Amino acid sequence: MSAPPPISRYPVPTLDELPEDIRARMLEVQEKAGFIPNVFLTLAHRPDEFRAFFAYHDALMVRESGLTKAEREMIVVATSGANDCLYCIVAHGAILRIYAKDPLVADQVAANYRKADISERQKAMLAFALKVALRSVELVEADYAELRQHRFSDEDIWDIGAIAAFFALSNRMANLIAMKPNDEFFLLGRIPRNNQGK
Amino acid sequence: MSAPPPISRYPVPTLDELPEDIRARMLEVQEKAGFIPNVFLTLAHRPDEFRAFFAYHDALMVRESGLTKAEREMIVVATSGANDCLYCIVAHGAILRIYAKDPLVADQVAANYRKADISERQKAMLAFALKVALRSVELVEADYAELRQHRFSDEDIWDIGAIAAFFALSNRMANLIAMKPNDEFFLLGRIPRNNQGK
Amino acid sequence: MSAPPPISRYPVPTLDELPEDIRARMLEVQEKAGFIPNVFLTLAHRPDEFRAFFAYHDALMVRESGLTKAEREMIVVATSGANDCLYCIVAHGAILRIYAKDPLVADQVAANYRKADISERQKAMLAFALKVALRSVELVEADYAELRQHRFSDEDIWDIGAIAAFFALSNRMANLIAMKPNDEFFLLGRIPRNNQGK
Amino acid sequence: MSAPPPISRYPVPTLDELPEDIRARMLEVQEKAGFIPNVFLTLAHRPDEFRAFFAYHDALMVRESGLTKAEREMIVVATSGANDCLYCIVAHGAILRIYAKDPLVADQVAANYRKADISERQKAMLAFALKVALRSVELVEADYAELRQHRFSDEDIWDIGAIAAFFALSNRMANLIAMKPNDEFFLLGRIPRNNQGK
Amino acid sequence: MSAPPPISRYPVPTLDELPEDIRARMLEVQEKAGFIPNVFLTLAHRPDEFRAFFAYHDALMVRESGLTKAEREMIVVATSGANDCLYCIVAHGAILRIYAKDPLVADQVAANYRKADISERQKAMLAFALKVALRSVELVEADYAELRQHRFSDEDIWDIGAIAAFFALSNRMANLIAMKPNDEFFLLGRIPRNNQGK
Amino acid sequence: MSAPPPISRYPVPTLDELPEDIRARMLEVQEKAGFIPNVFLTLAHRPDEFRAFFAYHDALMVRESGLTKAEREMIVVATSGANDCLYCIVAHGAILRIYAKDPLVADQVAANYRKADISERQKAMLAFALKVALRSVELVEADYAELRQHRFSDEDIWDIGAIAAFFALSNRMANLIAMKPNDEFFLLGRIPRNNQGK
Repeated sequence: MSAPPPISRYPVPTLDELPEDIRARMLEVQEKAGFIPNVFLTLAHRPDEFRAFFAYHDALMVRESGLTKAEREMIVVATSGANDCLYCIVAHGAILRIYAKDPLVADQVAANYRKADISERQKAMLAFALKVALRSVELVEADYAELRQHRFSDEDIWDIGAIAAFFALSNRMANLIAMKPNDEFFLLGRIPRNNQGK
Repeated sequence: MSAPPPISRYPVPTLDELPEDIRARMLEVQEKAGFIPNVFLTLAHRPDEFRAFFAYHDALMVRESGLTKAEREMIVVATSGANDCLYCIVAHGAILRIYAKDPLVADQVAANYRKADISERQKAMLAFALKVALRSVELVEADYAELRQHRFSDEDIWDIGAIAAFFALSNRMANLIAMKPNDEFFLLGRIPRNNQGK
Repeated sequence: MSAPPPISRYPVPTLDELPEDIRARMLEVQEKAGFIPNVFLTLAHRPDEFRAFFAYHDALMVRESGLTKAEREMIVVATSGANDCLYCIVAHGAILRIYAKDPLVADQVAANYRKADISERQKAMLAFALKVALRSVELVEADYAELRQHRFSDEDIWDIGAIAAFFALSNRMANLIAMKPNDEFFLLGRIPRNNQGK
Repeated sequence: MSAPPPISRYPVPTLDELPEDIRARMLEVQEKAGFIPNVFLTLAHRPDEFRAFFAYHDALMVRESGLTKAEREMIVVATSGANDCLYCIVAHGAILRIYAKDPLVADQVAANYRKADISERQKAMLAFALKVALRSVELVEADYAELRQHRFSDEDIWDIGAIAAFFALSNRMANLIAMKPNDEFFLLGRIPRNNQGK
Repeated sequence: MSAPPPISRYPVPTLDELPEDIRARMLEVQEKAGFIPNVFLTLAHRPDEFRAFFAYHDALMVRESGLTKAEREMIVVATSGANDCLYCIVAHGAILRIYAKDPLVADQVAANYRKADISERQKAMLAFALKVALRSVELVEADYAELRQHRFSDEDIWDIGAIAAFFALSNRMANLIAMKPNDEFFLLGRIPRNNQGK
Repeated sequence: MSAPPPISRYPVPTLDELPEDIRARMLEVQEKAGFIPNVFLTLAHRPDEFRAFFAYHDALMVRESGLTKAEREMIVVATSGANDCLYCIVAHGAILRIYAKDPLVADQVAANYRKADISERQKAMLAFALKVALRSVELVEADYAELRQHRFSDEDIWDIGAIAAFFALSNRMANLIAMKPNDEFFLLGRIPRNNQGK
């Protein structure tokens, strides 16, 4: 075995080929994470789509919300599991472990949220998200009522559904271009921080 | 019966409540189409997501491409049909009729592209798009090879898959908020232009 | 492109090749509709099956019933949408628009009856019809009780189920022979009558 | 336990309540079979539908055809198995055993035609019939070509598809009214004729 | 036609090739049943797996249980029907007829337990078993509660689920090796005992 | 939060309540692994089923085979992923990482074997295993031929299918009793051995 398998079916631009704003974003994430996640490198093949993709991502995942950041990542991991998207399960699994400070929750949610060590409220959230991901045509009033009974506001429900919808796009792009997760993601967040990297 | 049914489960901002850039975009489309499609009005409830959504849309649907505009709308209509998204079938059906100058093709493609009056090459394009929409995990080398045999370039294949992926998002958002199509769309493009509106 | 695509995979008899009773029925429908729907022309390839088909159709769709004619056509359009039958969606969509005097309802019901502008009672009717169409083995007492709660009689329930069952046959025949809808159907009922055809 | 479970959710007319032609048909089948199959008794609740149903049945199952009567019953049993229709599996299973003079073939075909002791040609016939029954929208040129390669004529293909389509109706009616098979059918054709009834 | 079709894709050992314990088990069952069921002959190709298979089978099907033997066979027949396993439907259908002393129940349960002449309690048992067979990931607290309401103990629930699980294995093995049921099974238990074999 | 969530819906015996042979097996695995996997503790609730389960497991997973141990674990992880079985994905994912000496392969195979860094021959093996797991009724000659073309012997094919079949049982048992994976499994095999535990 020689060269590692490519991270995309499509050409991956080098940093110096990139428009300034995209390169800046990559350097920023590299500074923070220690490496550049492949979703940045591979989607940069199309700069306009790259910009829209991350603008959308940030609008949902970074904004103020009634959902915690860990809960938003749970939605990503659960729906990506249902869509069998290797990149998103692995990369967002790592992010979920870090936000939740829980080394086990990501694998649980990816396999079967019903058996995960999360609250009943979070299970209701994921049931709704999976319906959006898999059978959105069947959404009926009772689905919204169920979430309200768990004290989710209408804006929270938009967040839940919109995150599931955005990763319906994201999962399909990753599968389309055969995006590979960085090796780093597989281990991230699995070891208590004071030990990690030692 | 009194008030017409709402066009969204969520509040719909009035034009003067909107940020300047979003209002400008709406007035522009109104000028061109004669009315404001409800996707603009309803998604404006979240300005940041609105901006990202239409930036993504334009990056795929307006850019130079090996696919004609009519072919891109065929992908939208076929995948929206598979996802049972009322708004997208009706609105993009209208756009497809206009671009293709064909009053029948949208209903054909929404129901069953295999029986539509389109080329074998276009049927291969839609078969790939539907696989991205419905079973993207199962994409294998043979699917790409089939498209290349129909003289689609790798960039064309990205377009086909990315449009299917973007409307996976769009269909789910429309179903989530119960977005209703404008009445105007149902008839648009069904009558040869010199007769329409008489 | 020269000849229009055929309306059936099978030979289509000319009017003067037909048995007298079948020709008479065609002329009658032509007189009324202004054209002969392709379901008549294409099924006439087998006269005995033709006679049984239309006898069955009339027994369900023309008889006195607790369901209005528009409601019966809603069942046809909703179940044909679920079965992806191009001919029936387009042809019965036209008939539904005319009976309901509503240019929008057919496209709504074909895509997603849950979001259509119809009554809750009609939505319950279509939910039952779709269960007959797609998962009749799972029919249980509660399904019948639900319809009775919406004041459907047992005979109404037979009508709902039998129409769904008959179009299970009809949709499969249309798909088997690749029956094409007449161009006329696509526009019928979309424009207020006093304007139509002018 | 006292009264036997009813054979239909709907009222079953007595012989003397029936229109003359329907009673005559029942007496004829009783003379031949030794009992009246419940499909006659239960569908007689609606005489017009009864007449159309059996006219359609006879047009397909009694007419001259390139398919043997046993092959036509194989189609019925295989598609009824796929639709989980108790009445049709049991009743037509009996008829298949008798026509095929084979006490085992019906249970084989109902469970899994791929493992039944039938010819490769008959397996191709059943594969096509099941596609009509379950996914008729996906029928493509290759499906017809496959049958022609097994020396089925176009008229044979119509027969195969039309029988699958007719029993799509029949299975749904049986499930709708909870039609029960006569006890006699369960044993019919299972014992070589010279022993039966002894 | 000459040689009968083989009972397995794999070599079937003769009795004298077998380890003593396996031969003894076969002779025992032959003594009791009058023939050796093909599941014994075909699985004996792998003695260690044979021993584990029948040890598991006996642990579930022979042990003391809150379920009657007929009820346990109902679970086998219903789940094997859902998995389309010819061997298990036919062989365990025969055993069910014998244990239940009911010549009709096996065909009913294999096709559609909802319409079988069994108790509501038994229908709840089969609904749970089918969920284990087909969608075990979706098991939730309400499924267990439903069974407890029908007075099934927790140990009964283990039995129901474990039998469904064991035949998930068994059905797949039978399909993998194309195991054929013995001809004897097709007729067993269909005729009141004092008549049988005369 | 106080007590950790239970590892089973059913009572878990303590070591000293267990029959001698079962306790011995547990102590042996504990010696080797450093902990007792929960599948031992939870299934010990039923000693006879426990013995049969592990006898079956060993007959398939420990025996001499044309498949490497890592390949056999790949089958377990891929089919458990398809069945959404949390316990088996996590526990056998760990074992796969160790046998394959590859910290990434288990997460890849659980999500989508088509994109995993494994050989084409191994992908063909997993495609067959998944067909056994999900649609064994559809197995046809071509599936076996495909494996033979990849130089799998008939005995190898039995192994592939039987492992998929055994874990069809195992996955359903784990879902039935809500078996939880030990925390240790989540991290095992993710760090090169000379670093692990430091």
